[in-house]
Amino acid sequence: MANRSEAKHPLKMFALNSNRSLAEKIAAAAGVKLGQATIKHFSDGEISITVDESIRGDDVFLVQSVSDPVNTMLMELLIMVDAVRRASAHSITVVIPYYGYSRADRKARSREPITAKLIASLLEDDGVNRVVTLDLHAAQLQGFFDIPMDHLEATPLLANYFVTHHLLDNLVVVSPDHAGVSKARRMAELLKAPLAIIDNRDPKKSTTSADAVIGSVAGKNAILVDDIIDTAVRISISAQTLKDAGAQDIYAVATHPVFSQNAVKLMATSPLKKVIVTDSIQLPAAKQFDKVEVISVGDLMGQAIRRIYLEQSVGQLFVNDDLAEGDQA
Amino acid sequence: MANRSEAKHPLKMFALNSNRSLAEKIAAAAGVKLGQATIKHFSDGEISITVDESIRGDDVFLVQSVSDPVNTMLMELLIMVDAVRRASAHSITVVIPYYGYSRADRKARSREPITAKLIASLLEDDGVNRVVTLDLHAAQLQGFFDIPMDHLEATPLLANYFVTHHLLDNLVVVSPDHAGVSKARRMAELLKAPLAIIDNRDPKKSTTSADAVIGSVAGKNAILVDDIIDTAVRISISAQTLKDAGAQDIYAVATHPVFSQNAVKLMATSPLKKVIVTDSIQLPAAKQFDKVEVISVGDLMGQAIRRIYLEQSVGQLFVNDDLAEGDQA
Amino acid sequence: MANRSEAKHPLKMFALNSNRSLAEKIAAAAGVKLGQATIKHFSDGEISITVDESIRGDDVFLVQSVSDPVNTMLMELLIMVDAVRRASAHSITVVIPYYGYSRADRKARSREPITAKLIASLLEDDGVNRVVTLDLHAAQLQGFFDIPMDHLEATPLLANYFVTHHLLDNLVVVSPDHAGVSKARRMAELLKAPLAIIDNRDPKKSTTSADAVIGSVAGKNAILVDDIIDTAVRISISAQTLKDAGAQDIYAVATHPVFSQNAVKLMATSPLKKVIVTDSIQLPAAKQFDKVEVISVGDLMGQAIRRIYLEQSVGQLFVNDDLAEGDQA
Amino acid sequence: MANRSEAKHPLKMFALNSNRSLAEKIAAAAGVKLGQATIKHFSDGEISITVDESIRGDDVFLVQSVSDPVNTMLMELLIMVDAVRRASAHSITVVIPYYGYSRADRKARSREPITAKLIASLLEDDGVNRVVTLDLHAAQLQGFFDIPMDHLEATPLLANYFVTHHLLDNLVVVSPDHAGVSKARRMAELLKAPLAIIDNRDPKKSTTSADAVIGSVAGKNAILVDDIIDTAVRISISAQTLKDAGAQDIYAVATHPVFSQNAVKLMATSPLKKVIVTDSIQLPAAKQFDKVEVISVGDLMGQAIRRIYLEQSVGQLFVNDDLAEGDQA
Amino acid sequence: MANRSEAKHPLKMFALNSNRSLAEKIAAAAGVKLGQATIKHFSDGEISITVDESIRGDDVFLVQSVSDPVNTMLMELLIMVDAVRRASAHSITVVIPYYGYSRADRKARSREPITAKLIASLLEDDGVNRVVTLDLHAAQLQGFFDIPMDHLEATPLLANYFVTHHLLDNLVVVSPDHAGVSKARRMAELLKAPLAIIDNRDPKKSTTSADAVIGSVAGKNAILVDDIIDTAVRISISAQTLKDAGAQDIYAVATHPVFSQNAVKLMATSPLKKVIVTDSIQLPAAKQFDKVEVISVGDLMGQAIRRIYLEQSVGQLFVNDDLAEGDQA
Amino acid sequence: MANRSEAKHPLKMFALNSNRSLAEKIAAAAGVKLGQATIKHFSDGEISITVDESIRGDDVFLVQSVSDPVNTMLMELLIMVDAVRRASAHSITVVIPYYGYSRADRKARSREPITAKLIASLLEDDGVNRVVTLDLHAAQLQGFFDIPMDHLEATPLLANYFVTHHLLDNLVVVSPDHAGVSKARRMAELLKAPLAIIDNRDPKKSTTSADAVIGSVAGKNAILVDDIIDTAVRISISAQTLKDAGAQDIYAVATHPVFSQNAVKLMATSPLKKVIVTDSIQLPAAKQFDKVEVISVGDLMGQAIRRIYLEQSVGQLFVNDDLAEGDQA
Repeated sequence: MANRSEAKHPLKMFALNSNRSLAEKIAAAAGVKLGQATIKHFSDGEISITVDESIRGDDVFLVQSVSDPVNTMLMELLIMVDAVRRASAHSITVVIPYYGYSRADRKARSREPITAKLIASLLEDDGVNRVVTLDLHAAQLQGFFDIPMDHLEATPLLANYFVTHHLLDNLVVVSPDHAGVSKARRMAELLKAPLAIIDNRDPKKSTTSADAVIGSVAGKNAILVDDIIDTAVRISISAQTLKDAGAQDIYAVATHPVFSQNAVKLMATSPLKKVIVTDSIQLPAAKQFDKVEVISVGDLMGQAIRRIYLEQSVGQLFVNDDLAEGDQA
Repeated sequence: MANRSEAKHPLKMFALNSNRSLAEKIAAAAGVKLGQATIKHFSDGEISITVDESIRGDDVFLVQSVSDPVNTMLMELLIMVDAVRRASAHSITVVIPYYGYSRADRKARSREPITAKLIASLLEDDGVNRVVTLDLHAAQLQGFFDIPMDHLEATPLLANYFVTHHLLDNLVVVSPDHAGVSKARRMAELLKAPLAIIDNRDPKKSTTSADAVIGSVAGKNAILVDDIIDTAVRISISAQTLKDAGAQDIYAVATHPVFSQNAVKLMATSPLKKVIVTDSIQLPAAKQFDKVEVISVGDLMGQAIRRIYLEQSVGQLFVNDDLAEGDQA
Repeated sequence: MANRSEAKHPLKMFALNSNRSLAEKIAAAAGVKLGQATIKHFSDGEISITVDESIRGDDVFLVQSVSDPVNTMLMELLIMVDAVRRASAHSITVVIPYYGYSRADRKARSREPITAKLIASLLEDDGVNRVVTLDLHAAQLQGFFDIPMDHLEATPLLANYFVTHHLLDNLVVVSPDHAGVSKARRMAELLKAPLAIIDNRDPKKSTTSADAVIGSVAGKNAILVDDIIDTAVRISISAQTLKDAGAQDIYAVATHPVFSQNAVKLMATSPLKKVIVTDSIQLPAAKQFDKVEVISVGDLMGQAIRRIYLEQSVGQLFVNDDLAEGDQA
Repeated sequence: MANRSEAKHPLKMFALNSNRSLAEKIAAAAGVKLGQATIKHFSDGEISITVDESIRGDDVFLVQSVSDPVNTMLMELLIMVDAVRRASAHSITVVIPYYGYSRADRKARSREPITAKLIASLLEDDGVNRVVTLDLHAAQLQGFFDIPMDHLEATPLLANYFVTHHLLDNLVVVSPDHAGVSKARRMAELLKAPLAIIDNRDPKKSTTSADAVIGSVAGKNAILVDDIIDTAVRISISAQTLKDAGAQDIYAVATHPVFSQNAVKLMATSPLKKVIVTDSIQLPAAKQFDKVEVISVGDLMGQAIRRIYLEQSVGQLFVNDDLAEGDQA
Repeated sequence: MANRSEAKHPLKMFALNSNRSLAEKIAAAAGVKLGQATIKHFSDGEISITVDESIRGDDVFLVQSVSDPVNTMLMELLIMVDAVRRASAHSITVVIPYYGYSRADRKARSREPITAKLIASLLEDDGVNRVVTLDLHAAQLQGFFDIPMDHLEATPLLANYFVTHHLLDNLVVVSPDHAGVSKARRMAELLKAPLAIIDNRDPKKSTTSADAVIGSVAGKNAILVDDIIDTAVRISISAQTLKDAGAQDIYAVATHPVFSQNAVKLMATSPLKKVIVTDSIQLPAAKQFDKVEVISVGDLMGQAIRRIYLEQSVGQLFVNDDLAEGDQA
Repeated sequence: MANRSEAKHPLKMFALNSNRSLAEKIAAAAGVKLGQATIKHFSDGEISITVDESIRGDDVFLVQSVSDPVNTMLMELLIMVDAVRRASAHSITVVIPYYGYSRADRKARSREPITAKLIASLLEDDGVNRVVTLDLHAAQLQGFFDIPMDHLEATPLLANYFVTHHLLDNLVVVSPDHAGVSKARRMAELLKAPLAIIDNRDPKKSTTSADAVIGSVAGKNAILVDDIIDTAVRISISAQTLKDAGAQDIYAVATHPVFSQNAVKLMATSPLKKVIVTDSIQLPAAKQFDKVEVISVGDLMGQAIRRIYLEQSVGQLFVNDDLAEGDQA
């Protein structure tokens, strides 16, 4: 009955402080300039924000990873949403390349919080209309929100590294533990490689044993796949385990490089040949080292936002399709 | 400053229609009699409920699995909650041994619902104060609720079958696909057995290939572990795959026996020796066959409810501890 | 200050499974094609839905009667709303020609639910923005919603049957019981006919007595008016009562033909000459019989939707005006 | 497992300004003293309230009819609820003998409010935990609330007037219009009398015509039944209509005596012999006249509150059972 | 990426009954005609509203001061919002020149309500999308709302009176008590005048003492500044205090002229030379006297609304900038 | 009808990390032991909490100041509330001696957030049942909550310092700016001292001028009163201003010692003789200096909590009575 209007609410995008360089790439890909806002941090930690241009009636996108320091970056986001809502924006979309606390997604023990759900509720109650995010620790986090969420996937970009670097021969994809097998499986499918799993039963996870490897890795080039590399203890032990089991070149692939504590040193001294990650979290100079390869998700996220704003389908190419096998089977 | 009072709001428990025999076991274990309610189903499907005894000020527990026919059983529960809330109950706890739709826990493709979250929202918005459930398809479903949930675990009861039947020798625990490895790992830990995984890349999942087995199963007794057996296609193909790979006795273990379509026939004609399940879903006569062993969760759930009512800790023995390894690692 | 824009959010209409033939008539009248969605029903009753075309930013209308099997049809609707909301529709309007459970609109006895309100809450909490419905059992159901509702009226269409068939002479309009007098009165006004009422005090409502008729019917052609014909017990007994009291031709008129249990047989063998109903509920072949005349509400509802979408007034011609006399008098 | 405790949250009851004499009767029947609160009305209409005794942890009952001046009485109630909630009451029950605006229960025309629902929402959002009320204009108003409501019935008390005054012979119960037939029917059942209805088609409802009577009234003593007598136009015209149709003694019975405008004069000069009402609304001296008989609902409501507080069933004797015939029939 | 569309939802503005003359000025300044609605008040106080023109899809602005009689004016507004929401308006903005109950903004004593917050909640829960108001008693009332609020300021208009009347010499601005110093300070800054404060420690505030003046006023022309003049007791006592302390000409300035009880007489007989107020509250003839100068806020509010509707910034000129000094200092 | 029960839900109190020494004093005064919980901070800032003892059915009190680092302390509190709610506590009371962000209580400029309200909403949405706090920056913050709040007052404790140290002669109480006059006035009343105000019009607030003093201070001992001392710029400039204006001994009094940036150095080198504060914020060694006197609020808060738990009135002695003069006057 009617054609879609070219007339639209203006698009405004703002970067908060977690990852301004990625925000600029996203904005460039979406074809907008970042808006002006003043964000002050006082010495006791209080944050003061003023949006410096009118956003009345606009479709506002806020780019912020909930990364180190996670509580401060989260509060920046919540306060900015409050300011934008009170300033009469037409809609508020938060773009969260790295969703901190995503591993706190269930009660693992009695009397624990589910902080990943808490954050979803804080954002929804604050008036957010939509979320765009990337490679959540568990796909079920989508259900922590009742507002629309676009869950983008970096795995094809990461897989593409091995294609463009001609590293497709004699591969095995390895999950460093039993909980992340689905992520490894997705990479194995993309690279048409077999799968292996490390089942480390040492309660401290600090020893290596070639027996812990399920599947064959001897003589193969192994790609360890995880979503987050945090302390890098698991990925380093896993690399040594694969080396002990006879693997040749060993790569680590992960979307989110938290790299906390001694992560850099552990990876630098491990048998890992390369560590391929994205820029969902901004790596300070101190966390960059020669084995790291950073692949930008700026273009992916910017194009998704452009399509969202224009109300076009955010197609399968972009979307995280983690259909577990055999559901309803 | 004060001791816990012996004086309490009275406990009332009601069974709806999905699984009255389990409800009776739960009530017996909790030390109460089931209350009286009249539930009529009209020929167009409308359900009419009247609670036949006063529940003003009582702590009411409603026992209902969301099992076949799931929509009717869900509506029975929602309507009963409405009646109980309007009748001035002090609190409403729903006890859901089998949480139907639990596999619809994320958007696997664009423009899909997350029905497991929808059901959580329907229950919360209806005024439920607490949920008690058993072996959810994904532990993250706990975060779909903001009200307290007690998530009980049947795995130790199921593992105990192998202990009491002296079947602990030469075991391997097998996950029938990559998505359920954590459940198999939990069983493997309890039985101190090694782990294997089946990675079936046939898009139709209908062929068997010994190559699909990751890990060693030849000459071993294999226990296939899943949370739900629905059509039994996957479990049957997996059993044949294991047989092809040289496994000896093959068992299937699952908490929830949906057994839809030709499930019974598939399992009966498969190499499976035994299928060990719980009574979370009531098996009609037509779905019972000689390979099936049903282990009741009535005592487990009844004791948990008793402790909940008395406000005692529902300790680790009962609770589903699915701490994924390596989180924060 | 500004003219209404021609530019609009696109309109998309989807039919669920209760009454696809009416949905097609509605769509034709509204000038749109029905959209594509895949709705699967698994053997345990679980429903899986995928919307097969992009609806991002669209004004989505979902057509579904909550009719036999009512719980399944309701869950189809709730799940579809969840899918459409998560798929970023601009607005969601549910079009419910027959609102099942509408008779459960108050606590008739202690400890009963008010299921008609429960359903309203389920829909609102699920994110529905507007409801279009037809001849609710009680007009007060409008107040069960806080979102806008367009309550359409079929009575003029039904009255028109008597005009076009030249059946206006010597009429009396009869309410089959005291609770539905307002509906009969509305028809009597449209047909400028007198009113009578049947007051059956038999607790089982299964006997007929000419004494039960209040008002004069002897020698007249009587039109029994109800909103729903369910089991048809009341309407059949009423027809016999009128016949005993000397009425000539006897017609039954109702908006919603539930026709459950032995309804068809009861009406077929009763003194009723014709039973005039609408297609708000789809009559399967088994429920069609020669006395039934079905008048489509497709054009009425389609034109209303067109006006809603274009943000024009849904004028008095369409709207159910059941102003009780004497309020504030 | 446990007996109901004798230990309870203390009961506190407060009267606001609409009907202090009824509140005192209710308190006496419930066995409590009314609490102290200071309610000031400033000259611009602002209301200031202070609760003058601690209510921390108490079960608080607030007695207020939403009667003339309805907006002021409603705001007194809303403000008191806010004060009581902030003062840490354990629960808040509002006791509303007359629920003003109850006739605004549906959209009778396009672009009208549903004020009866608005008031329900205002109360619920303000933190009320339960409502006790009396003879609502439509039973469906119960569904405007999601919190528990006890809907008491005065009809048996009113019917009892005719028993105790030996006025049971030769009766007919008459509904003054088609919309209130169910209320008249309930009285007719209690008095075992036949039913008649007045169907006045004069658009202004200001003329009388013996033809408007459906059913036989000639030579009988007639009881006109309504829930509210407001301007008394309808009841007076109806009395004259019955007189014209040959009725003997004519009584009017209604629960709520609004008596606005010229109501008293109209009734005084009408053929009505007696007007029997309750004290749900306090009649000022100017509205009392010799035909009026006031029957107190204080004992009924006080006993109901006592049972609610003690968490005993508010049994069938007290409850408004308006089961429409033939639902689901 | 896109320019703001000229195509818009139509703007509709309605005046309720508190201050129709101001509403007409606002409408004229905004460039719209007031819409038609029928508002009836029945003799028991019930209000009935019908919106007489279609507002489907429109941006609706409702102009209403919550002024004498405040409860009635508030209910008019709440009921109108309910009608407008159910009539499918696109958005609802309430324009409240005088926000009654604004002084009830905190619990001054135990067990008091916070009625200003209650009213904010009533409006938000009723579906209001935005509030436009003027000179709130405390700026913190903005935080009582989560929806956008535009808080306009009349102080520059009031200050301008002294500019245009050449009354800038030898001024001192005086706060009549310690609680309103910030308002006086704002006026002092605009007029570049010094500040003084009256600190009346008489518990009844009914005596005057030159000692109560803090700061120098002898020989100066004094401007007493308040936001509301209600009973005028404080402003009259303050004027006499200033006269006793040697002030010359004494003016009172306030945004909101409540003028209740004997306010007019008190001011008329006080040493006040002029009382400058706005038309936020409509002064009936009985409250006008020769010392009063009324400055209209119609143009200010109309232009603000026009900018809001066109989604332009409501710039600093209009907005109440009450930044307290030294916050974060 | 019933006496208050001695039987209660057990009281549990937990301290988070902001101010454990105050929490211990509060617990001692309330007569309880602090409960056990494990709170871990990971290197990227993520917080992990486990409550180490059963709290099912308990009344839980959580003590946490939202002080430096405010975002981390706030998130600790929000996460703990989530854990406690999911662990089935009967009620959750948060005890917030210092409510950070309290100065962000209104939009001082366009497009600013109201962070104090955001925090209130975060806490309420998280399931908190009650708040206990101390000397809020503005009393209106009480209205940011709809749950009960007990707002305690430290001013009498601070005033008592001057009594016990025999410093009551020749006093003047001074507000360092116009926005805090009410706080100074309260102290002046308690000490029966006159009031003065500093009105510094230097936009940078960095210069001193004896002319800025309104009221007489020459030759008097001055007490500067503020609620928070943050950077101490204002209080130091004010002290110098008073010294320039001839004041003798100069004291600063404030409830909350934020002491950020160079606060300690500024105060140490200023003319201030003493700085009297409370332990609402824990002063690290580096912020303690010889002029500081810390008065504990532990006993005040502990006794208030004890009364809250026992459901006794938290009487006037404890409560912040900031009734602004002249409201409704």
